[in-house]
Amino acid sequence: MTKNRSQKQKKARQVNAAETAHRGGRKGGDETVRIFGIHAVASAVANPRRELIRLHATTNAQGRLVEEIHKLKGDPSRLDGLVETANPKDIDTMARDAVHQGALLVARNLPALDISDIYDCKLVVVLDQITDPHNVGAIIRSSVALGAEAIIMTGRHSPEESGILAKTASGGLDMISMVSVPNLARALDDLADNSFDVIGFDSEESEPFEKVIAAQDMDRHLALVFGSEGKGIRRLTREKCTALTRLDMPGPIKSLNVSNAVAMTLYACQLKRDGVIG
Amino acid sequence: MTKNRSQKQKKARQVNAAETAHRGGRKGGDETVRIFGIHAVASAVANPRRELIRLHATTNAQGRLVEEIHKLKGDPSRLDGLVETANPKDIDTMARDAVHQGALLVARNLPALDISDIYDCKLVVVLDQITDPHNVGAIIRSSVALGAEAIIMTGRHSPEESGILAKTASGGLDMISMVSVPNLARALDDLADNSFDVIGFDSEESEPFEKVIAAQDMDRHLALVFGSEGKGIRRLTREKCTALTRLDMPGPIKSLNVSNAVAMTLYACQLKRDGVIG
Repeated sequence: MTKNRSQKQKKARQVNAAETAHRGGRKGGDETVRIFGIHAVASAVANPRRELIRLHATTNAQGRLVEEIHKLKGDPSRLDGLVETANPKDIDTMARDAVHQGALLVARNLPALDISDIYDCKLVVVLDQITDPHNVGAIIRSSVALGAEAIIMTGRHSPEESGILAKTASGGLDMISMVSVPNLARALDDLADNSFDVIGFDSEESEPFEKVIAAQDMDRHLALVFGSEGKGIRRLTREKCTALTRLDMPGPIKSLNVSNAVAMTLYACQLKRDGVIG
Repeated sequence: MTKNRSQKQKKARQVNAAETAHRGGRKGGDETVRIFGIHAVASAVANPRRELIRLHATTNAQGRLVEEIHKLKGDPSRLDGLVETANPKDIDTMARDAVHQGALLVARNLPALDISDIYDCKLVVVLDQITDPHNVGAIIRSSVALGAEAIIMTGRHSPEESGILAKTASGGLDMISMVSVPNLARALDDLADNSFDVIGFDSEESEPFEKVIAAQDMDRHLALVFGSEGKGIRRLTREKCTALTRLDMPGPIKSLNVSNAVAMTLYACQLKRDGVIG
């Protein structure tokens, strides 16, 4: 038991040392993240912008990963020389008991994007102080599935949270442009100055979203702004929106979990693009 | 520190003893659940079918609860004699460090419902082996918000999980009919025999949901069947569905978090009822 724990601690120290050794003096993307779960790890390897440091994986997981990376048209040879075969318990420790499916990748954070990098995106999701990594992860996954091209966030996540976020996003983190901004009000101004309609969601607003989306010109670029549960979008964020709207609920509960609200909204955008509504 | 921990343990023991003392020989609803969070506790008190045992709450939370219970047209006097003023740390221990907002209610589980109790419901969500309490909670919340009247599940949750589920459901657990069935295939047969169209979601199916819902006669009763992520709906469940469909995703990820998928689907039903689609 003591030996087992000591081995775990040794393994954890090795991983920490590997991460530290790779922290250089570069700006942006110099921090590491532990990505776990087959989908998340495969997507990271298939993303040429993602710098890989070391993969800890069971033999079984290594096989599944190669298959999954091929499906994503990625190059598994990027892992050459970086793979350490591990047993599930070692990975339990490294992933801090999160569900890892036998695979944990230590990688560098993606290079930071600037707001101007996403001016070409047609559909962008903006999160005003939404920080729960499970919620953000589910939002990334739905955004990728339902055709949003970028996510703008106000906060950064710790490496540990980023792992949970990447897992919950089911690979989506490496398939969408993520922009973290220090000043959301300014970022929304920048979007509005660059052909975006900026639509904020606020339960107090009188205009239901169905009306707004029906009238929306889908040739315009669209940014959808969501606030945290309870607090909603902040006053200054509100003021920077070019339109405000509410989601209507027929039942006795009047608000959804934020990731459910985002999925519902992106679906309405898809129906509009497909000509089903509006 | 030792004293503090010993007090915590004492408090935990008291709560456990109170729960045990209330476990009688009755069938169904004889097990207790710890419900925490303002919305969840207020909804439980406002639900006359919910038997209350004891409320542990801060003074501040007690005030918020009374307000919230009134909003739900409930009767706060149901709590008379059951309230114990507690400090946040005591409640931390009882809620096992979940976010409780200063309120934890020990209550009895709701009396078990039979499948025949929900034959009148027009829209029902069926979960085939979906067990994660965060997902189930978010599904309950969206179901209540978007007008589903019942949820059929294959599994029971432990009292601890039920607390997380009730919190995530944001009060929805006390606003919707929950049916737990030992044999889902038989339950779906029963629904089909009682005017329900039973629509199963399976990513391998060729008929997109938009077509199915557009053609759906909304005067018929509708049951929407979702499987767990990864495994999907089981073979026998599939066979009992009267129609099968898939959700289309335009992006590179082809599946959503299950609570997001349910929200999106219920929203489509709402758009159909409102005459926006179909």
